[in-house]
Amino acid sequence: MEAITRAGLDFASALSSDMALFEEALRERRAAVYGYLDTWPGATNFKPRDIHDALFSYVRRRGKALRPLLLLLSCGVVGGDESRAIPAAAAVEIFHTWTLVHDDIIDRDDTRRGHPTVHAMYRDHAIRDHHQSDREAAHYGLAVAILAGDLQQSWTYALLGDLVSKGVSASLVLELAQRMSVNLTPKLLEGELLDVQFALMPPDSLSEERILHMLTLKTGALLEYAAWCGAKLGLAGRPDNAGYAEKLGTFASLAGIAFQLRDDLLGLTGDQAELGKSVGSDLREGKRTLVVYKALQSASGEQRRLLTSVLGKADASSSQVTAALDILRSTGAIADVAALANSYVERALALLEELPANEYRDLLRSWAAFLLARTH
Amino acid sequence: MEAITRAGLDFASALSSDMALFEEALRERRAAVYGYLDTWPGATNFKPRDIHDALFSYVRRRGKALRPLLLLLSCGVVGGDESRAIPAAAAVEIFHTWTLVHDDIIDRDDTRRGHPTVHAMYRDHAIRDHHQSDREAAHYGLAVAILAGDLQQSWTYALLGDLVSKGVSASLVLELAQRMSVNLTPKLLEGELLDVQFALMPPDSLSEERILHMLTLKTGALLEYAAWCGAKLGLAGRPDNAGYAEKLGTFASLAGIAFQLRDDLLGLTGDQAELGKSVGSDLREGKRTLVVYKALQSASGEQRRLLTSVLGKADASSSQVTAALDILRSTGAIADVAALANSYVERALALLEELPANEYRDLLRSWAAFLLARTH
Repeated sequence: MEAITRAGLDFASALSSDMALFEEALRERRAAVYGYLDTWPGATNFKPRDIHDALFSYVRRRGKALRPLLLLLSCGVVGGDESRAIPAAAAVEIFHTWTLVHDDIIDRDDTRRGHPTVHAMYRDHAIRDHHQSDREAAHYGLAVAILAGDLQQSWTYALLGDLVSKGVSASLVLELAQRMSVNLTPKLLEGELLDVQFALMPPDSLSEERILHMLTLKTGALLEYAAWCGAKLGLAGRPDNAGYAEKLGTFASLAGIAFQLRDDLLGLTGDQAELGKSVGSDLREGKRTLVVYKALQSASGEQRRLLTSVLGKADASSSQVTAALDILRSTGAIADVAALANSYVERALALLEELPANEYRDLLRSWAAFLLARTH
Repeated sequence: MEAITRAGLDFASALSSDMALFEEALRERRAAVYGYLDTWPGATNFKPRDIHDALFSYVRRRGKALRPLLLLLSCGVVGGDESRAIPAAAAVEIFHTWTLVHDDIIDRDDTRRGHPTVHAMYRDHAIRDHHQSDREAAHYGLAVAILAGDLQQSWTYALLGDLVSKGVSASLVLELAQRMSVNLTPKLLEGELLDVQFALMPPDSLSEERILHMLTLKTGALLEYAAWCGAKLGLAGRPDNAGYAEKLGTFASLAGIAFQLRDDLLGLTGDQAELGKSVGSDLREGKRTLVVYKALQSASGEQRRLLTSVLGKADASSSQVTAALDILRSTGAIADVAALANSYVERALALLEELPANEYRDLLRSWAAFLLARTH
């Protein structure tokens, strides 16, 4: 753990002089994207009130907007006009949102960053407004969250369609929509189902390759799409002989996997207040992270028994969790995964060097530092 | 009840000479649309196996394909080439499918036409393959069904995108996709949530207008879209001075509402074997149908008490159900709703008269007869 946090912080602090510039760039673009969503005229079609409010509940809370920012910077780095890409930046934010709304149902998470998730919120509304039993109220919350996520998915396509009004050609808009429907969505949902299935399988029936494949799909695919989409809009039909769009996509995907690996380490060893969940909760939930898989591979028989007994045991004691964490450390699994995350960061940053040297490229480097330097 | 069934049958038998022609037309187009879906190349991206199989489970069972047929006939009636519209016909079938997969979760239906629904099927798989507890298996089934419906929604847009390869202009494809995302999806999902909310409200807090509005959204909107979309493809950019696309859309929506009203009557009074569910099950489930609302409006105090006590009472006895049905009949509610359904049919058929007189128009009349003459 220590290795990766240090690497992340070193990387971030080395760039600290750029970070003020970056935060200003983020602030401006975040305001533009959320402003676009807040005043989107088609939202008058989102009815009745529970659907409308559910759709906007995550938007109103404001995310970090790291995906929209990535899209806009990728547009700029290849020489494009960012202002034309705003609807696409809004689209990737809403795409991310619908996957969260449905994933929160699947993960049975009642809170996200300290706020109730959509299904939890409307469960509580049903109790308050319709005096439903707990069981019926939970079902009402489920119904609203399913429908809200469904409508957000269609909103994503509507937002991409808006690009035409910004002067983007219909054929380019269709190309962006096709890559979303034919490539991005199947990948991301495959990653989500694999994550669910892995948790039902014996941990050592997995492999490093399969776990990394799942992360690439679940976390990498949308980041890859956002960067690729921004570059396509920036190029606006100009030939892409240097393959900038694919390079930006791969850069973003690699950074996303590094983020996820690091997030898994922090979920095991990080600070409780910063995480917003208790240390070891991933272990108690039985999450099949790469670090657990690696530890099981090199653990002694006794260590395996202890680690397996804690994994997925919701009521594991804190001394059991501490013993399990010691195994993750002493087997070298934590250091291995930290090193792997660093290698992904290095590969990502090397790709940036192949892009045009301009202020956007500096901001993209800061974007990666920002993504990796904090817990999200 | 008697009135509407007779009207439906009269309408159908008057057209019986055309019905053989119609059934042949349906068979051909159904084969073309399902053939297109069965061999869709992008399906290799639908992974892992549970997602792929869940996506195809409804497709493999074959629906009636009444929506694709409506789209293709609407293309033909305005002089268009149906073969170019096949991907759009496939798209409306998959759109219908994803709404069913998610609606089955919301309605807690474990079977559809005698087969298990997606969430029920994968619940059973989880018990068999992963030896999960009932609770965990139900949650796995829910996860697969949510993700499968999500992926089918994106498949819908991918299928619309295929139209470009059939020579349809990118700007027309975008117009079709925009109407789906900005208009159709919000309408249909509004109808679904209203249906859920109505069941939680006291029956007499509703109104005829609100119930018909819900039916228009939930049942009419997709039929309206299918007909409009077919006409737009048939016109392929030619001016639509006579407003054929909107007229076809309204024709289809009105026919759909008539179908739904009639379906509600059959759900109360129809033949158990034909319905595939027991007579009175809509009463026991507490469904807020227009006929129940109308009966409550004109019932005596004693009748209201009896009807209200049966509504939503899962274990109501058959004699209680019979008494409730007598009230629906004696208050005139059944005859009223039957007459209303007939008026929708007449308005729908009158609109057909404003379309070009050709064999497609005859087939569209048969399509309406077919929709209305059977239980679906």
